[in-house]
Amino acid sequence: MSDSATVNVELRNDSQPNRSYDIEIASHSLKDLGAKLVEIGLGKKSKKILIVSNPVIDNHYGATVEKSLSESGFDVAKLILPAGERFKTATSLQKIYDAALDHRLERSSAIVALGGGVIGDMSGYAAATWLRGIELVQVPTTLLAMVDSAIGGKTGINHPQGKNLIGAFYQPRLVWVDPEVLKTLPARELRSAMAEVIKYGVIWDRELFDLLSQCDRLDQLRYIKPELLQTILYRCAKAKADVVSKDEKEGNLRAILNYGHTVGHAIESVTNYRLYNHGEAVGLGMIIAGAIAVDLGLWSNDEQAQQVSLIAKAKLPQTLPADIDQDAIIACLSTDKKVEAGKVRFILPTAIGHVSFNDVVTSELVKQSLRKILS
Amino acid sequence: MSDSATVNVELRNDSQPNRSYDIEIASHSLKDLGAKLVEIGLGKKSKKILIVSNPVIDNHYGATVEKSLSESGFDVAKLILPAGERFKTATSLQKIYDAALDHRLERSSAIVALGGGVIGDMSGYAAATWLRGIELVQVPTTLLAMVDSAIGGKTGINHPQGKNLIGAFYQPRLVWVDPEVLKTLPARELRSAMAEVIKYGVIWDRELFDLLSQCDRLDQLRYIKPELLQTILYRCAKAKADVVSKDEKEGNLRAILNYGHTVGHAIESVTNYRLYNHGEAVGLGMIIAGAIAVDLGLWSNDEQAQQVSLIAKAKLPQTLPADIDQDAIIACLSTDKKVEAGKVRFILPTAIGHVSFNDVVTSELVKQSLRKILS
Repeated sequence: MSDSATVNVELRNDSQPNRSYDIEIASHSLKDLGAKLVEIGLGKKSKKILIVSNPVIDNHYGATVEKSLSESGFDVAKLILPAGERFKTATSLQKIYDAALDHRLERSSAIVALGGGVIGDMSGYAAATWLRGIELVQVPTTLLAMVDSAIGGKTGINHPQGKNLIGAFYQPRLVWVDPEVLKTLPARELRSAMAEVIKYGVIWDRELFDLLSQCDRLDQLRYIKPELLQTILYRCAKAKADVVSKDEKEGNLRAILNYGHTVGHAIESVTNYRLYNHGEAVGLGMIIAGAIAVDLGLWSNDEQAQQVSLIAKAKLPQTLPADIDQDAIIACLSTDKKVEAGKVRFILPTAIGHVSFNDVVTSELVKQSLRKILS
Repeated sequence: MSDSATVNVELRNDSQPNRSYDIEIASHSLKDLGAKLVEIGLGKKSKKILIVSNPVIDNHYGATVEKSLSESGFDVAKLILPAGERFKTATSLQKIYDAALDHRLERSSAIVALGGGVIGDMSGYAAATWLRGIELVQVPTTLLAMVDSAIGGKTGINHPQGKNLIGAFYQPRLVWVDPEVLKTLPARELRSAMAEVIKYGVIWDRELFDLLSQCDRLDQLRYIKPELLQTILYRCAKAKADVVSKDEKEGNLRAILNYGHTVGHAIESVTNYRLYNHGEAVGLGMIIAGAIAVDLGLWSNDEQAQQVSLIAKAKLPQTLPADIDQDAIIACLSTDKKVEAGKVRFILPTAIGHVSFNDVVTSELVKQSLRKILS
């Protein structure tokens, strides 16, 4: 791997050529964002840009991005929203709309989402729906956003009754990744993102899984060599882009990306989005999905152990509180977006790098796997 | 024209074949909706349907539609929202989301919008964004919705600061038009929709314009023969479908449909959406756009007089209150979605059936035309 890499996300189901876009991964590239936006044609009709970020990220990188955009001739406004999943709400969305109105964003103006998944999802949804769609640039600042949420066009907000119930498929014009910003990422955020990284290994990329297995620890950036980090970012972006290109709107294949998420979302919801962050819940969901696959005879005990071992190397939670409301988790599964005809469709591993869909997972089987990891 | 007609809306920019859809116009067809939905493949995965309507329409037609859907095997729920543009809000949208959650709509479930433009726009937007997009069927019950808002995929809600600022392009699976339901349409609603009908004549279809000119009155249904009504519905749907097919996302051509709307929206907003309904404001906007075109030497006085004459035959308002806030209208124009690079782009007639875009209309010229029609 060189110091920079580009993954093109081709949207084959759509003949509009400008619907495909690049994910660019390059160290120390934050200061070059403005020039890049000019290069891809933003600013031709409207110079207006609204940066949406959160206080911590703005403190670290807001000035660099603002300067870069201003120096490239953009008319920049900035909106700072509180950080955290519990702020991914209609209220925060309304604030973005108000800022868009105040800054008089036009259809060819852009929103730059500078932050993690929450900022990216909300800003993306605002861009999708303001004036029925304006330009969007994702500048993910967390590992989770870099390898997952900023890629693929899923945008949205939470409903009090469940995550991401309100949203749109909306593609950005560019995803701009500067790995340097991960140096300020809290360790817990890094660890939780590792759940998604491991996920790509399990569902799609055995080589990535093996690379991760060779590491002693995956819980802090200093244990991961820069070249490996670059490789991880590239392979994950490539995996997600490959899947999304083949199935933009989740007709079928794309659903494999939800591996670990079905139960993970339920765990997050039942614990009020407080006990676990997204990646931690996904890691638990993967362990449970793996256990179900083993129970169904679809997967080997050995590979499930390898998966659990990687999750352990990332120091992600491997157990659930003994008093967790199992029935609430089951009830929550049935309001999940992935429900079809009342059935929960599970994505279950069959071999490292491969998963299959399964419609025959009973509530009892889910509970059985849940009980295995109660602390 | 026969008793029924079909207009296919082809979305050429998109290779997904299921993105094109039919507008079916047939008298006494409301009772056949369920069978039609089965015919086009709804209900295969999910039987759940949410009807969204308003109290008056529900009173007239709710039972017929519910019965038709239930008899075809659908699991039907119904949400009744208050009628009127001022309820096209985030609050009403939230009620649709809540009903979608209560009825456990899945991705392959459908929302049936049974009503006029407000119900259609809100329900369409809810369908576009719930679970990132579920099925949508438009059953327009007003002339305005039949000829305009139910066709073309524009969905959305109002922001306190302006109409339709929040929305999405989202295509229905079917538009189902039963002209019989117009018999219960209030006369004012019929008149206001005539503004859009006349609009299609001015911007696209001279033959339609001539047909309308041959009528003595256009203000009540009883003055319009059933065959002419059928022709009007067909030609308007065809005009809109033609334009939308050529330019789904308002890159360029589609903007001609906004003829009369730029100033019309501003008039509605400045009068707090109370003095005029949408069509009345559009009629005024067309008179003003026509006057601007005449002032710029683009259009003949004679054809402007013909346009005003049709608007008069529909008994639509032709004057503005003497004390209307002209500056507020100008200010409002600059927050319009159609603003590009700070300029308001006007659509101006050049001959009956033809319009052109114009970027050189000054605030002074707009005010001059406004003043011509102060009462």
